[in-house]
Amino acid sequence: MNILVLNAGSSSLKYQLINMETEQVVAKGLCERVGASESVHIYEAGSDEREFVLELHDHYAAVKAVLETLTNPDDGVIKNLADITAIGHRVVHGGDFFAESVIITKEVIDRIKECVPLAPLHNPPALSGIRSCLELMPNTQQVAVFDTAFHQTMPPKAYRYPLPTEYYEKHRIRRYGFHGTSHRYVSERAAVMLNKPAEDVKVITCHLGNGCSLTAVKGGHSVDTSMGYTPLDGLMMGTRSGSIDPAILLYLIDYLDMNPREVNHIINKESGLLGVSGLSNDLRDVGNAADAGDERARLALELYAYSARRFLGSYFFALQGADAIVFTAGVGENAQKMREMILEGLEDLGICLDLERNSKRGGERFISTDDSPVKVMVIPTNEELMIAKDVKALIS
Amino acid sequence: MNILVLNAGSSSLKYQLINMETEQVVAKGLCERVGASESVHIYEAGSDEREFVLELHDHYAAVKAVLETLTNPDDGVIKNLADITAIGHRVVHGGDFFAESVIITKEVIDRIKECVPLAPLHNPPALSGIRSCLELMPNTQQVAVFDTAFHQTMPPKAYRYPLPTEYYEKHRIRRYGFHGTSHRYVSERAAVMLNKPAEDVKVITCHLGNGCSLTAVKGGHSVDTSMGYTPLDGLMMGTRSGSIDPAILLYLIDYLDMNPREVNHIINKESGLLGVSGLSNDLRDVGNAADAGDERARLALELYAYSARRFLGSYFFALQGADAIVFTAGVGENAQKMREMILEGLEDLGICLDLERNSKRGGERFISTDDSPVKVMVIPTNEELMIAKDVKALIS
Repeated sequence: MNILVLNAGSSSLKYQLINMETEQVVAKGLCERVGASESVHIYEAGSDEREFVLELHDHYAAVKAVLETLTNPDDGVIKNLADITAIGHRVVHGGDFFAESVIITKEVIDRIKECVPLAPLHNPPALSGIRSCLELMPNTQQVAVFDTAFHQTMPPKAYRYPLPTEYYEKHRIRRYGFHGTSHRYVSERAAVMLNKPAEDVKVITCHLGNGCSLTAVKGGHSVDTSMGYTPLDGLMMGTRSGSIDPAILLYLIDYLDMNPREVNHIINKESGLLGVSGLSNDLRDVGNAADAGDERARLALELYAYSARRFLGSYFFALQGADAIVFTAGVGENAQKMREMILEGLEDLGICLDLERNSKRGGERFISTDDSPVKVMVIPTNEELMIAKDVKALIS
Repeated sequence: MNILVLNAGSSSLKYQLINMETEQVVAKGLCERVGASESVHIYEAGSDEREFVLELHDHYAAVKAVLETLTNPDDGVIKNLADITAIGHRVVHGGDFFAESVIITKEVIDRIKECVPLAPLHNPPALSGIRSCLELMPNTQQVAVFDTAFHQTMPPKAYRYPLPTEYYEKHRIRRYGFHGTSHRYVSERAAVMLNKPAEDVKVITCHLGNGCSLTAVKGGHSVDTSMGYTPLDGLMMGTRSGSIDPAILLYLIDYLDMNPREVNHIINKESGLLGVSGLSNDLRDVGNAADAGDERARLALELYAYSARRFLGSYFFALQGADAIVFTAGVGENAQKMREMILEGLEDLGICLDLERNSKRGGERFISTDDSPVKVMVIPTNEELMIAKDVKALIS
């Protein structure tokens, strides 16, 4: 059984074809500059890596190009489209309509449309990807997997903002949370690694990439998460400020005569590691600069670590203690120094990092000492596999 | 030695005359509706309570009325103005100019003026109060005590926001923190009650009133606090939302066509307990409604407690553990049920509330169990006494 996982962005289309017997990737790729001239399709199947420059006017053209490459009679990985059992679509925003993945129907499409105002940059391309597949493979089952779904189990005290009730009831302003597929995947893996049923486990999952979010997971369910109404909320990130005094925005508008779009750009695209360091949104670049003595880069690292530590503490208290802390995504999986900065000096609180283990690279692993009351783990995230598993479960 | 403590608000003047030998209040009072017609001066000295209706066109008139009442030959508490040794002024914003209280000079006044843009509602009346006293009592020493001063010891990782550096360097946008005099007072009292030198103590002080802030205090110094650039940041409060996804403000402006002033009003005046309950900004009213079965009131309480708990956790981790948690101000001192909600189920983290002790009223007291690793205390705040002590220390 092969499942095709599609992740359509505003001008991109990422995909993986996964063999569900082996859970291995058969082929994967990325179409960039979709909708612009000179699009690029980067394709990878085993040792076969290729780059095509072509015209992809829209997501339909991109999906078509991907399917043709996969089924190319000369060097495709599958014979024909019938070898794709089902398709899974990553959809950023499911609002409060979807608490789990669903088989796509007309009603589901309408609901995803209704969530466009909540994710104006992300839901429209997902809809394009879905429509393209329905047209190109009308007899193949399709599933929508939402970034927000995992967080629908949050209690009101976690998802409501302390604003007048009408903004929740009329305008749907609440904490939704994102990165749900990743948090779900690594929290499930954590329970397996702890050798405990998921329902008995309390874990804090730290998804630290260019976007960053922490989630408090209790008994397999998200009970709080740091991203909120939008993916800006919560932790300091690569280019996003995360939570700041909201009154600062009004100051920028009122006193510095900025318009809301400029302010939006600053807090989403020019802040975070990039804004503080003045150098880069990439933690590796900032780390190298700090090692070379750059003071702003050093401060950016400190702010980033301290932001994560404070959220870790808040969820530790929210959960009334945790069994494990999991690091995942680009920074979480690879930045040993950052993990050390975040957890430094927390031994009295039961969190004992093993510096030797933390310094080694590898797959799923424990990086706490054997006697650490709270286990610390690194678990590489795999959102595509999680999506494919959901598809498999739904169609069978 | 008598010290007069003045706290000038936009249309009010609060004062206390404190005998520094006994540290007792000789007389205190409040002028309301200063600048409006039919001002009211409420005066209290021992069992003598009076209310005067009069015309107080400005703060000068209010200060003059207070001094005349205090020195009234028939029933004043002092013979003449020479019995006031010095005057202490509460000033909300000292920017990053003042890390402690100072004797007022021309230069100090200029600095307070420079901070007007940071506290446009609060610093101008404080300046009026200072100028009035300089005119009415030109030979009496005057001291400025800043709400922000205690927090000037925060490290950059706590006071910097992850915004582009220029907003800090050019526009002074950083975390300042407020309620500093209260946090300093109760953290000093906590060290005394713990019978330890302040430099050895780590304590989290919870100032919960209509405004709310938490401070992490290490070795007698503030190392982090929840209010930020403005007093909006941080916890949910009586009418303030505290930290929310900043992008919500842009949504309100862009999609709901609000102007920044309306948004400012909503998040500062219509949110918090009031906004969620739809009833009141007073925790007692909301608590009564919740007891009577009101669901919104119940949710407002849950949000309030959960907001405080999360910040408590974040500072517990920031401090790498704490010796004590202190509750103060209106809610902190009196709302036993709220304290219980905030700390419920944290025994495994070393925080063991004694429900019996927590249920009793009184002055400074421990409300944790004897064997609780982290002590929990209630300490009534006394900002006026703290101000008077600063004045005494500076003039002697």
